[in-house]
Amino acid sequence: MDEILNFVNSPRDIKKLSLYEMKHLAAEIRQLLIKSISQCGGHLAANLGVVELSIALHYVFDTLRDKIIWDVGHQSYVHKILTGRRDAMKGLRQYGGISGFPKCEESLHDAFNTGHSSTSISAALGMALARDIKGDDYSVVAVIGDGALTGGMAYEALNHAGHEGRDLIVILNDNEMSISRNVGAMSGYLSRLRTDPSYSRTKDEIETVLKRIPGIGVNIAKAAGRFKDMIKYLMVPGMLFEELGFTYVGPINGHNLEELKLVLANSKKMRGPVLIHTITEKGRGYEPARKKPDSFHGVGPFDITTGNQFKKYKMTYTEVFGEFMVEQAEKNQLLVAITAAMTSGTGLERFSQVFPERFFDVGICEQHAVTLAAGMAKAGLRPVVAIYSTFLQRAYDQIVHDVALQNLPVIFAIDRAGLVGEDGPTHHGVFDLSFLRNIPNMTVMAPSDENELLDMLYTAFYINGPVAIRYPRGGGNEGLKIVKERKLLEIGKSKVIREGDELAVVAIGRGVSIAKETVDILSSKGINAALLDARFAKPLDKDMISKIACECGRVVTIEDNCLEGGFGSAVLEVLAESESKASVVRIGIPDEFVEHGQVDILFRVLKMDAESVAETIINRWPELLDRDDTWGLLKFGKT
Amino acid sequence: MDEILNFVNSPRDIKKLSLYEMKHLAAEIRQLLIKSISQCGGHLAANLGVVELSIALHYVFDTLRDKIIWDVGHQSYVHKILTGRRDAMKGLRQYGGISGFPKCEESLHDAFNTGHSSTSISAALGMALARDIKGDDYSVVAVIGDGALTGGMAYEALNHAGHEGRDLIVILNDNEMSISRNVGAMSGYLSRLRTDPSYSRTKDEIETVLKRIPGIGVNIAKAAGRFKDMIKYLMVPGMLFEELGFTYVGPINGHNLEELKLVLANSKKMRGPVLIHTITEKGRGYEPARKKPDSFHGVGPFDITTGNQFKKYKMTYTEVFGEFMVEQAEKNQLLVAITAAMTSGTGLERFSQVFPERFFDVGICEQHAVTLAAGMAKAGLRPVVAIYSTFLQRAYDQIVHDVALQNLPVIFAIDRAGLVGEDGPTHHGVFDLSFLRNIPNMTVMAPSDENELLDMLYTAFYINGPVAIRYPRGGGNEGLKIVKERKLLEIGKSKVIREGDELAVVAIGRGVSIAKETVDILSSKGINAALLDARFAKPLDKDMISKIACECGRVVTIEDNCLEGGFGSAVLEVLAESESKASVVRIGIPDEFVEHGQVDILFRVLKMDAESVAETIINRWPELLDRDDTWGLLKFGKT
Repeated sequence: MDEILNFVNSPRDIKKLSLYEMKHLAAEIRQLLIKSISQCGGHLAANLGVVELSIALHYVFDTLRDKIIWDVGHQSYVHKILTGRRDAMKGLRQYGGISGFPKCEESLHDAFNTGHSSTSISAALGMALARDIKGDDYSVVAVIGDGALTGGMAYEALNHAGHEGRDLIVILNDNEMSISRNVGAMSGYLSRLRTDPSYSRTKDEIETVLKRIPGIGVNIAKAAGRFKDMIKYLMVPGMLFEELGFTYVGPINGHNLEELKLVLANSKKMRGPVLIHTITEKGRGYEPARKKPDSFHGVGPFDITTGNQFKKYKMTYTEVFGEFMVEQAEKNQLLVAITAAMTSGTGLERFSQVFPERFFDVGICEQHAVTLAAGMAKAGLRPVVAIYSTFLQRAYDQIVHDVALQNLPVIFAIDRAGLVGEDGPTHHGVFDLSFLRNIPNMTVMAPSDENELLDMLYTAFYINGPVAIRYPRGGGNEGLKIVKERKLLEIGKSKVIREGDELAVVAIGRGVSIAKETVDILSSKGINAALLDARFAKPLDKDMISKIACECGRVVTIEDNCLEGGFGSAVLEVLAESESKASVVRIGIPDEFVEHGQVDILFRVLKMDAESVAETIINRWPELLDRDDTWGLLKFGKT
Repeated sequence: MDEILNFVNSPRDIKKLSLYEMKHLAAEIRQLLIKSISQCGGHLAANLGVVELSIALHYVFDTLRDKIIWDVGHQSYVHKILTGRRDAMKGLRQYGGISGFPKCEESLHDAFNTGHSSTSISAALGMALARDIKGDDYSVVAVIGDGALTGGMAYEALNHAGHEGRDLIVILNDNEMSISRNVGAMSGYLSRLRTDPSYSRTKDEIETVLKRIPGIGVNIAKAAGRFKDMIKYLMVPGMLFEELGFTYVGPINGHNLEELKLVLANSKKMRGPVLIHTITEKGRGYEPARKKPDSFHGVGPFDITTGNQFKKYKMTYTEVFGEFMVEQAEKNQLLVAITAAMTSGTGLERFSQVFPERFFDVGICEQHAVTLAAGMAKAGLRPVVAIYSTFLQRAYDQIVHDVALQNLPVIFAIDRAGLVGEDGPTHHGVFDLSFLRNIPNMTVMAPSDENELLDMLYTAFYINGPVAIRYPRGGGNEGLKIVKERKLLEIGKSKVIREGDELAVVAIGRGVSIAKETVDILSSKGINAALLDARFAKPLDKDMISKIACECGRVVTIEDNCLEGGFGSAVLEVLAESESKASVVRIGIPDEFVEHGQVDILFRVLKMDAESVAETIINRWPELLDRDDTWGLLKFGKT
């Protein structure tokens, strides 16, 4: 077991291996991947697909000098295993353990942090330019999947790289999938390349063929320049990339170590930008993942023998959203759903099957997704755009400029808002309340449980302008019964959950469940706190918040969003306007990027769990306990 | 004069014109464009280039049914003239007059509002899909320049449109320019298309040529499918677009009305997505604009005979930035400058000439620009990214994910922050303080005059992390003398401009000059206000702001940014933390999209001019006047 892997402590050790040993190493790495991810969860299919590619890259390049940039980065586990983090794999994605993405802070072998899609070519070109300006000498390699290539910024970078002509290697890791099955004309183009009859034809063969055409006439001769292009087109299947200024190499078999080593070594010597088109198979070496690569894109812990994921015990917001969409689409013929390569992640799988003609997966193209929705809304449809909070940052301008400025009725279903857990800082959706609530015409809501999500979605269709509903990853409230009847919410109105007169807790979204627990703790100490579920971050329930602040004199806001400009700041704005003299404590994500780890651990670390919040409150207003009510005081002494 | 134009009151009138009359109409429109823009300023060169195209579009299509989406939209003046807004041209871009961009609120003939680049194909595809889902019947046309085609979202949309295969016409208005001369490999590709020998070759001619090749051998026969592609490639120059699923038509002469009419009429009947490649000349028909199309992209009022723009009387922030960059680059070999197609607009023209090897114009690609800078910074350079505030919204995710998360020292020089004036709501940069200050690791500054801008730029190079400096369009302070010596600012420290004890005005950026005037007005009424130039929106000068709030009890914040989550909210956050009981009034852009018009008019309309601010202050705290100081009271009575 692991007789070769145990010997590989740094990439230098790979260079000593024979081809036979490398193949063995690949098999051992696959076993380690399956074992680690079955325990910790993570990105399995993508990593199984790049085992040979990662080994070959480390054989040919020296990552202490050369820079390898992993696009998205969830396929960097093999690279991590090969660069001294083999044993750290057991703590993968756990709090305090190694990240599921490249991380310069973790290793000198990581060149650039990634997490979102389609950034690698831009970063790589930046490094190549820096190298040339500084007179340094190293190779820069971007490894990008065909899915990530659908993102517009990858094209912007290809276009610029082709123009600059610097030495730069782009490896197109083509597995015919992004996360869901790939879409777009480019995907069709790549599949034509894969099935091209000239796949295995060499330059010599083609020249032989061409020489057999006798008597090239006058007209052809006139088109001599063009004819050269013809030959090139015959010879080089990747004409599209060639037109953009790249030398196209491929397609090559991404599981053939010998071929990979050869092609990479040759490309390293080539001048100018090179695109190597490798064909790989997602999930290779593990049947359950190979057969269902989308289910094994990001997985929770699973049973290795069967491939079955261990059952989760509660319904997720995502599922609730997905079911609502199907139900609503039956009643509303104008409803359409748009996703950016996240059909299953956003819960739209069933919708896509039941209403294929009203479902649009546009690829990893958040910008296009949002303006597409704007066009649809302008022409009378009712588009729902389902995008994760952190990826919606990609479409900020389109939300402002194409949707909100025209006050178009586009509904944004923003999943993975707030802390997401194991995916870490690149994926936490903790900025959306701040960057959405400053957009005019926008209504911003966040539900405190699944029923409220349903009411908010239902209500959104009655709002004649853009609406954003942000909700967290996973389940909200254990044991919650989904109410069949939908309620129309009053726009900008909060819900009083608990009356109280000493302190007003105003919470939103996941903040409400923290608040409920907090209020219980406070109550157990004899502190009588009111609790408000704000529901709307915009428009805010000014009257109720002002009233409750006036009554209690002390206000605590709780949100699963950054404190800067977030929900709590909106409350401060309202209180300043209403000339309130209430003291305010804001609880939320502090001004830092939050690491990866289980959400409940992170909340504790950030002092956002109910116990910590109660403590913060009592520290700020010790007079709440300092009363003749000695019972409460004694009780506090005990905690 | 204008004998035909005066007769064209709606597009229906165009359909009655003979070819001869249409040519005449084109000439008359050019005269009107030159006259109007020489008086109001505006986008001249682009509009002169699309006169015939606009006439032909209205001849073939019916914009009460069919949708024409003008990418960016600054080339829509001719369309406006032809759709009932001929006489409104004299109020172009003036407050209360017509907008310089398409505006559905202005006319039923405007299908979709634009202003930013590369959105048209997404919006058009959205409309085409809506049409098909609703069973409607109309044509959808996107008109996009070759510059806008460098934007990644245009590629995302092309890719998706090719995949969907819906009826959709994309007109590529190729004038070999975006705003600056075009960059990128795609631009090279287009220029190869323009000079292609097969330009005028017909399908028949090619078949004849091919038939002359005798004895097609066994090997060629085997590659039969491929051979068909060869023929297609010979025949169709726009293979790249064909690969993406479009039928490519062109290139055609965009000034030949007859050809345009024919091609557009044919394309209207074609099924699936069609790309029409038209070649036009920016500035056509007006020599000064034709010779210097970049100077005549967006112009102020100018002399028609000479083409000289009427002199502006003061130095702009843009110029000050440009000179600093040249000066700094001489000392710092690691400094590089990046712009997204705004070399001249951002003041980098001289830099691009003096340091061409350290200057990068990446095209209209804000996303790529920012991540490119991140790559450069990671590899040891000191990149300065100069992007207008409103366009920086395009790169929000890249700022968060690629720059700030890795705490990379990228300097963002954010021109056109705050209200920009005549370009209106799509171009006002009024959200940046809100969307930047919630990003961890980010330092955010805004200068109150040009010397402070220089000090901030100078200081930025001493900060080991991302820095954003936002400054307004145009000149700051008339008669200001530029200080030669650069001062290192203390990070997060404000500057006391005036001491006072009744009221503290805390302002930032352009807000400081408003504040100065306000304080003078207040002083004339006997009110003793302190004035603080905050300089930093992040980190905020907590100590000084808390202290001054404590001393005065009344705080007014003034900023040229939206009130939601902006600078004033940051002040509220600080005051809440320091348990201040001060009352706060925040002055800034209210929660609405602000129309176009001169900046000083807009400030007055928004009650952000000094007179209005003073009034707001006194209304909020009438006790400031209501004292035994009757002199002050009397004085107030007089104003």
